[in-house]
Amino acid sequence: MADDQLGAARDGVAGPDDVQPYLDAFAAIDADPAHVLLVAAHSDDVVGTLQLSFLPGLARRGALRAQIEAVRVRADHRSGGLGSAMVTWALAESRRRGCALVQLTSDKRRGAAHRFYARLGFTASHEGFKLYL
Amino acid sequence: MADDQLGAARDGVAGPDDVQPYLDAFAAIDADPAHVLLVAAHSDDVVGTLQLSFLPGLARRGALRAQIEAVRVRADHRSGGLGSAMVTWALAESRRRGCALVQLTSDKRRGAAHRFYARLGFTASHEGFKLYL
Repeated sequence: MADDQLGAARDGVAGPDDVQPYLDAFAAIDADPAHVLLVAAHSDDVVGTLQLSFLPGLARRGALRAQIEAVRVRADHRSGGLGSAMVTWALAESRRRGCALVQLTSDKRRGAAHRFYARLGFTASHEGFKLYL
Repeated sequence: MADDQLGAARDGVAGPDDVQPYLDAFAAIDADPAHVLLVAAHSDDVVGTLQLSFLPGLARRGALRAQIEAVRVRADHRSGGLGSAMVTWALAESRRRGCALVQLTSDKRRGAAHRFYARLGFTASHEGFKLYL
């Protein structure tokens, strides 16, 4: 998270107390089968993450939709196909769970990421709105 | 759902069997406190809906994020402030649950909706990618 151009300012751990919110969030994700946290490891190092969430809804005849968040690949492991492998796994898992669609948002400043998602079959058909509380 | 320019082709109920998927989806939403289905009623008629989901995540120091889906107002109740009232309620509920942000995607063809969300404080900072399975 900290090893990310746009995320560095809002994430990071300065001391032991800063770890607890991340542990609490991990426990919440881990406890709920509607959320899957994919971790890519190289030896003992975490080099990639992806969160996949499954959301019930009434639209599209009550279809389950999958949502991808927190796609991160460590800088020294980029451009080697790891991101593609993680997203491809997410698509297969979404298909296996019977989802009608997979969705994600990507900051408009991440041009390379947009080309990456387009190559994997995603369409930038929507505006992604955010409001920080 | 059926009373919507973009949703008409993908939703709708032709016979009793078509109702079951919606009932199943409603039961899934209703059973999980992470999802709230807001319904606006006028006399005995449903004239508006909004789904609000609360998603755990590791980004932003383990922040909970709120997501708005399925915002629909019946045609004869539009431009009267109902959509604004529903979204404003969703923002207050998201704040109450300690969310760091509220997010939604809106089809790029829905120009009026984009102005509506901008007026409520949302920023179209992201591309919204979809992939239909």
